[in-house]
Amino acid sequence: GMKLNGFPCKANITSEDFFSDTLANPGMTNTSMGTVVAAVNVQKMPGLNTLGISLSRIDYAPSGLNPPHTHPRASEMIFVLEGELEVGFITTANVLISKTIKKGEVFVFPKGLVHFQRNGKAPATVLAAFNSQFAGTQSIAATLFGASPTVPDDVLSKAFHMDSKEVEITKSKFAPTKQ
Amino acid sequence: GMKLNGFPCKANITSEDFFSDTLANPGMTNTSMGTVVAAVNVQKMPGLNTLGISLSRIDYAPSGLNPPHTHPRASEMIFVLEGELEVGFITTANVLISKTIKKGEVFVFPKGLVHFQRNGKAPATVLAAFNSQFAGTQSIAATLFGASPTVPDDVLSKAFHMDSKEVEITKSKFAPTKQ
Amino acid sequence: GMKLNGFPCKANITSEDFFSDTLANPGMTNTSMGTVVAAVNVQKMPGLNTLGISLSRIDYAPSGLNPPHTHPRASEMIFVLEGELEVGFITTANVLISKTIKKGEVFVFPKGLVHFQRNGKAPATVLAAFNSQFAGTQSIAATLFGASPTVPDDVLSKAFHMDSKEVEITKSKFAPTKQ
Amino acid sequence: GMKLNGFPCKANITSEDFFSDTLANPGMTNTSMGTVVAAVNVQKMPGLNTLGISLSRIDYAPSGLNPPHTHPRASEMIFVLEGELEVGFITTANVLISKTIKKGEVFVFPKGLVHFQRNGKAPATVLAAFNSQFAGTQSIAATLFGASPTVPDDVLSKAFHMDSKEVEITKSKFAPTKQ
Amino acid sequence: GMKLNGFPCKANITSEDFFSDTLANPGMTNTSMGTVVAAVNVQKMPGLNTLGISLSRIDYAPSGLNPPHTHPRASEMIFVLEGELEVGFITTANVLISKTIKKGEVFVFPKGLVHFQRNGKAPATVLAAFNSQFAGTQSIAATLFGASPTVPDDVLSKAFHMDSKEVEITKSKFAPTKQ
Amino acid sequence: GMKLNGFPCKANITSEDFFSDTLANPGMTNTSMGTVVAAVNVQKMPGLNTLGISLSRIDYAPSGLNPPHTHPRASEMIFVLEGELEVGFITTANVLISKTIKKGEVFVFPKGLVHFQRNGKAPATVLAAFNSQFAGTQSIAATLFGASPTVPDDVLSKAFHMDSKEVEITKSKFAPTKQ
Repeated sequence: GMKLNGFPCKANITSEDFFSDTLANPGMTNTSMGTVVAAVNVQKMPGLNTLGISLSRIDYAPSGLNPPHTHPRASEMIFVLEGELEVGFITTANVLISKTIKKGEVFVFPKGLVHFQRNGKAPATVLAAFNSQFAGTQSIAATLFGASPTVPDDVLSKAFHMDSKEVEITKSKFAPTKQ
Repeated sequence: GMKLNGFPCKANITSEDFFSDTLANPGMTNTSMGTVVAAVNVQKMPGLNTLGISLSRIDYAPSGLNPPHTHPRASEMIFVLEGELEVGFITTANVLISKTIKKGEVFVFPKGLVHFQRNGKAPATVLAAFNSQFAGTQSIAATLFGASPTVPDDVLSKAFHMDSKEVEITKSKFAPTKQ
Repeated sequence: GMKLNGFPCKANITSEDFFSDTLANPGMTNTSMGTVVAAVNVQKMPGLNTLGISLSRIDYAPSGLNPPHTHPRASEMIFVLEGELEVGFITTANVLISKTIKKGEVFVFPKGLVHFQRNGKAPATVLAAFNSQFAGTQSIAATLFGASPTVPDDVLSKAFHMDSKEVEITKSKFAPTKQ
Repeated sequence: GMKLNGFPCKANITSEDFFSDTLANPGMTNTSMGTVVAAVNVQKMPGLNTLGISLSRIDYAPSGLNPPHTHPRASEMIFVLEGELEVGFITTANVLISKTIKKGEVFVFPKGLVHFQRNGKAPATVLAAFNSQFAGTQSIAATLFGASPTVPDDVLSKAFHMDSKEVEITKSKFAPTKQ
Repeated sequence: GMKLNGFPCKANITSEDFFSDTLANPGMTNTSMGTVVAAVNVQKMPGLNTLGISLSRIDYAPSGLNPPHTHPRASEMIFVLEGELEVGFITTANVLISKTIKKGEVFVFPKGLVHFQRNGKAPATVLAAFNSQFAGTQSIAATLFGASPTVPDDVLSKAFHMDSKEVEITKSKFAPTKQ
Repeated sequence: GMKLNGFPCKANITSEDFFSDTLANPGMTNTSMGTVVAAVNVQKMPGLNTLGISLSRIDYAPSGLNPPHTHPRASEMIFVLEGELEVGFITTANVLISKTIKKGEVFVFPKGLVHFQRNGKAPATVLAAFNSQFAGTQSIAATLFGASPTVPDDVLSKAFHMDSKEVEITKSKFAPTKQ
C-alpha cells in the first residue's frame, strides 16, 4: 500500500492528517484552576505517528493557574501568545528556577521536572511544544489527592506533614464531582 | 559542582539560561524572499542542552516565501500566529501534501522532508517547534545554486534539466552580495 | 590511549571502576520519613558512563515511607530484599496501581510517573534498578513545599486547595533545619 | 511462537530472510540521469526489521549523475566498487564538501544533508550503506519540479529566481512520461 | 480504550501486570553448570512493554558457573543477594576486568561484552538488572558447540585451534539430551 | 567557530575528514586465521563523529576464517566484493542461520549476535557496514582463551566441557607470541 515518510498508512492520506484547527480558539477558562489545556498529539492528529513532536494551547483566566505538573515523556518549551505569567520549574536539587514572562517570550521546562504557570491580572494564552507525540501530563496535586483508588491517607499525611483530617479534607476537594 | 537536570553546568545557573525574548518582536521582512527566521536553539539558550527541543519565529511580508528547505535533524510543527499561508511538504513518493492554514491552525512537517510556507496577501507570522535542540536548516535552492565552493554546473544542469547558461544565471542570483 | 567499551578512558582502568560496595550495608533509617536511599550511579561509579543503567538501595524503618516522587529520566524496577511494603504508582489518568509486595517480589514504576513505597511493621529493604546512569529523583512534597527559593504561596494554595496559612505551615515543616 | 533476536517473527524464519542477491548485477543505466539505484531495505529483506541498517547499489553510465538528494532518516557511507566519481555534500552553512574518489575509496554523507555523485568517463558502481532500515530518498529537483500535485509555480519561481515560464518549462521536463 | 502511560492496553489493566513473584524462590541449581536463571522480562510481565528495563535472578550451587555469555541488547548490573562470586567481563581489547564480590556488592557488565560469574564454596544468589525489556542471552559455548543446525566443524576447529576430533567431542557434550 | 552539521569542529574542516582510502587495497591475509580486517570508524575518520555509521573491509585467503565474533554496539550488513563464503549467525535460541553467498550478494548479522564468515577455495573480500561509528569487535575464542589477565581455567573448563589440560593447551595457542 501507499506509504508516507516510509511507514505504512491508510490508503488515502491527505493533508487533513497533518493539520488541526483545534487550537485556534480559546478554551473555556471557567474551571477550578482558571486554566484549560487543548492538546494536538498523536491521538488527535494521526500524521504525528513516529514524528516525536506535539503542541498544546493553554488558556488562563486572570489569576488562573496551570498547577504543578510533570510530563513523563517530554521536555516542554512555551511561547506566550498573550498576557504575562510567572513560570517556573524545580530542579532535582529542589531549586526553583522561575521568571515572569510576557507576550512573545519563551521558556523551557526540562524533561520530567515539576513545573507550573501562574497567570497575572489579564487573560493569557500560551503555546506549548513537546518533543514527544504523546507527552502525557501528571498534575501533581490531583494525582496524589484525587487518584482513584485513593492514595492511602497515611502516605499523604506523612509525605506532606499533614494530619489525617487535613488529608481527608484535601482529598474531598479533588472528589470527581468537584473536578 | 552544582547540577541541573543531572548534568554538569556552570556555577550559577539562573532562569535566564532557560529564557529568551528574542522571538517577541517581528523581524525585518524586507529580505529577498520576504521572510525572516529567528531561532531559539541551544546556541542561543544554553539551558536547552540535552533537552531535545527548540523554537523559531518566522515573519512573512505579504507574498513572502519560506522557500523549500529541510531540517536534517528534526520534525517541525507550526502554529500560525497571524495571517494565512499555504504550507506543504513533499513525500519521498513525490506527493505534495499541502493546505492553506490561518491564524491558530497547526501543521506538521515530517522529519527531513522538503517543505515550504508561502504567505498570502497580509503580513503573517508563524511559531515553529522542533524536536531537536539544533535542528539545522538547509534551504534547497540556496544550498544548490549558492554554495561555496559552487556545485559544478553540469550537476545542476543535469539535475534541473537546465542548460549551462541558465545554471550560471541562476547561480548569479544567489551570489553573496545578492543575499 | 587505552579504551574500554570503545570510549576513551583514564590510563589505568581497573575492576574498581565497575564495582561498588556502598549498597552492602543498611543506611540509617532514623530520618524524617523513616527511609534512606543510597544510589550507585555514574557519579559514584565511573564505569557506568554510557551504559544506561544504575542501582539504588532503599532501607525502611517500620512504617517508613519513600514518599511520592518521580525519576525524570528512568523507569524503575524494584526487588524486595527484606520485609513487606505497599507500593504504587499513579497513571496519567489518575488511576492508582498499587499492591502489597514482600521479600523476593518485583514491581515496576513506569518512566516519569509518581510512585511511592510504604513500609509495614518490620524493617524492610528494597533494591531498585533504573534504565539510566543518572535517573534523578524529585520528591514531590519536598520539591513543592521545600524548594529554595520557595514556590509562591498562592500557587500551592490553589493547587492543593489549601488556604495561605496551611501552605505556610506545611512549608515550615520542610524548612532546611527540619530536613 | 518462535522468536529471532527477541522479536516475534513468522513461523519458519530461514536464512533467506537475511539474504539478498538483488545487488549482484548492474542495473540498466540508460535512464534520464544515467544512474540507477537498487536498494535492500526492510521492504525487500524482512530480517532487517529492528536492525537499523540497509544497503544500496548505484550504477552510473559514463557522465551519469545521482542528482542532489537527501535521505531524511539516515547517514550514508559509500564505497566505490568501480570507476571514479566526484562526490559532495553541502553543509547547513552552504559549504560544499566534495572530492573525487575512485575504486576502493570511501566517503560519508552526514544525516539529512543534500549530496550528489557525478560519474566520470567510464562506467562506475558504488555500494552505499545507511544507518536506517528504511532511509528514504528525496531527489531534490524531481521533488520540487515533478511533484504531484505540483508545487505552485510562484513558490518555485521565487525560490529559484526563475520566471514563471522557466518554471513551467522545467516542470515539463519532470512530467511523468519523461521519467 | 483505556491507556496506561499513554499506550494502548487491554481493557482492565491491574497491578498484576506490573508485578511478579517468580523471583521470590531459588531455582533448582542441579543443572549441568550448577546455575539457574529466572527472568522477569516483557514476555513474563506485560506492563514492561515500552519501559526498557527487566530483572533476573540467578542461583548458583557451590562452584556453580554462569558461563561466559553476552546480552545483545543490554548492559547488566548485578547485586549479590547471597554468597561470594568471582565475576568478570572482557573488553574488546581482550582485557579481563574481574573481581570477587560478596553479599551486597555491585558490579556492571557493559552492553554486549562477554562476561561470567563463578560461584565460590557456598550457595549464592544474584539479582541482575538490564536496561532492556528483552535483553536476550547468548551463552557462548552452547551457542557455538550446541547450535542446531551445527556450526561447521572446521569453523570451530580453526577458531579454537582444536582438531576435528576435539570439536566433535565437545559438540557431543552439548547435545540436546545433555542440556 | 565554524560548525559542520551543527556540531563544533576544528577550524578547517575539509573533505579529507569525510574520506578514506584505507580500504582500497587488500590487506595481508597470511594471518593465523587467513583473514584481515581494516576498519574506517570514527577513530580513523573524524567526520564520522555523531553520524552512527562505519565501514570495514575483510580479506580472506582461501579457506580463511573470520572466526565467531560479536559487535557489541552494531548490526552488520555485508556485501561480497569477491569470492564465495559460508556465513552465519546464531540466534539466542541457538539456531544457526547460515548460507553460502557469493560476489554481489548481501547478508545481515543482527545486533550483538555471534556470527562468522568462512571462505571457500579462492581468495575473497567482503565490505561490511555497521550502524555505529564505533561498533567494537569481540572475537569469541581469543576473548576467552587469549585474554590478559587470563580467564580462570575452571571457568573455561566447565563452560566448554574440557579438562584443565585441554584448556591450558588451547590457551597456549592464543599466547601473544602466537597471534
